[in-house]
Amino acid sequence: MDYSQLFPFWTYLNPNEEEYIKSSFYTEKYEKGMIMHRSEENCKGLMTVLSGQLRTYILSDEGREVTLFRIHANDVCVLSASCLMDSIAFDVLVEAAEMTEVLVLPSVCLNQVIKNNPYVELYLYKAAAEKFSEVMFTMQQMMFLKSDQRVARFLWDENVRSGSMELQITHDEIAKYIGSAREVVTRVLKYFAGHQVVEIKRGKIIILDKEKLKSFL
Amino acid sequence: MDYSQLFPFWTYLNPNEEEYIKSSFYTEKYEKGMIMHRSEENCKGLMTVLSGQLRTYILSDEGREVTLFRIHANDVCVLSASCLMDSIAFDVLVEAAEMTEVLVLPSVCLNQVIKNNPYVELYLYKAAAEKFSEVMFTMQQMMFLKSDQRVARFLWDENVRSGSMELQITHDEIAKYIGSAREVVTRVLKYFAGHQVVEIKRGKIIILDKEKLKSFL
Repeated sequence: MDYSQLFPFWTYLNPNEEEYIKSSFYTEKYEKGMIMHRSEENCKGLMTVLSGQLRTYILSDEGREVTLFRIHANDVCVLSASCLMDSIAFDVLVEAAEMTEVLVLPSVCLNQVIKNNPYVELYLYKAAAEKFSEVMFTMQQMMFLKSDQRVARFLWDENVRSGSMELQITHDEIAKYIGSAREVVTRVLKYFAGHQVVEIKRGKIIILDKEKLKSFL
Repeated sequence: MDYSQLFPFWTYLNPNEEEYIKSSFYTEKYEKGMIMHRSEENCKGLMTVLSGQLRTYILSDEGREVTLFRIHANDVCVLSASCLMDSIAFDVLVEAAEMTEVLVLPSVCLNQVIKNNPYVELYLYKAAAEKFSEVMFTMQQMMFLKSDQRVARFLWDENVRSGSMELQITHDEIAKYIGSAREVVTRVLKYFAGHQVVEIKRGKIIILDKEKLKSFL
């Protein structure tokens, strides 16, 4: 694996640090739905997604979820190392949205390295800032877009991502992704179905007309 | 002014950098309501609030506002230097919420210094991460709290901040602060007034019973 490609701080490591980090890496596999990070419980470290997909979300006391962003292959999950970043003072959950393999750089190792190497700490904070940008985008969508737009954008993105017109997803899952209620999603989907934009089947949604879907974006 | 107190990176500056930064500072005054940052237009630099208060918010195409956080005296506004941070890819507006004086460290100076000093760049990203935490808090409130809780918390915070039971603020301003609609705020305030929690007057709200207000938090 070409670590220098994955981690921009690699060129700023001295030989000892490089050796220490290399020997600390390990991989882990998670089944779909498994929670791999819950702030108060653990602080595993920096996770790089090798395959699959992670979902980062917040949870209300009543169990309502809002998806903040997803992390795809070759992208990093930095909030699972948030214990190393004093300036990050909030809790999120991270779960495997599908079968996912991650490369873990443990917090204990990172903690040691950042003491003497500001570039590694800077890397962590830059990665967090990128997620900040994604959260802001999500927030703007939630605050400012109408429900039909949010559902249409979600379906559009899923189609682009999966390359398939047949999306294996429930109304409840869509609601969690876009931070809405299941009833609202069902209402919008019925409206789309009535206009021949999609066809609703048990556990899946089939996109019938991409041009029509686009008109709702 | 004790810059080392204000800026944690001060101890990591060499004498040239320190001299350059010291000679670059300037102060500016803004009237209430003046917009001091709008991402696409300018990138003034790092602003430290000397007196007054800044409000950071996002704006929809239809003109709806959502307040992300406020910046009080001795705190910094780092998003006004977002052009220096490639990992920050979103636009916010910053306005003076009251008459405000700021100490500006211009982007052109910072840009020069961060080329050779990772501690200054790290400082910027850490400051951004702190705001990330505040935005997450705001987002959780918006997503998960009911309108009456949000209005009650706003009134409570305003009372703590100003030390006064008489808050000079309109329903529309409250709506912007908590990311709600004016009609919703008016409805909640009428409900509070009906329960002798507050008294509504033209352009101001008087808190009548802090214990009752607390019960809505």
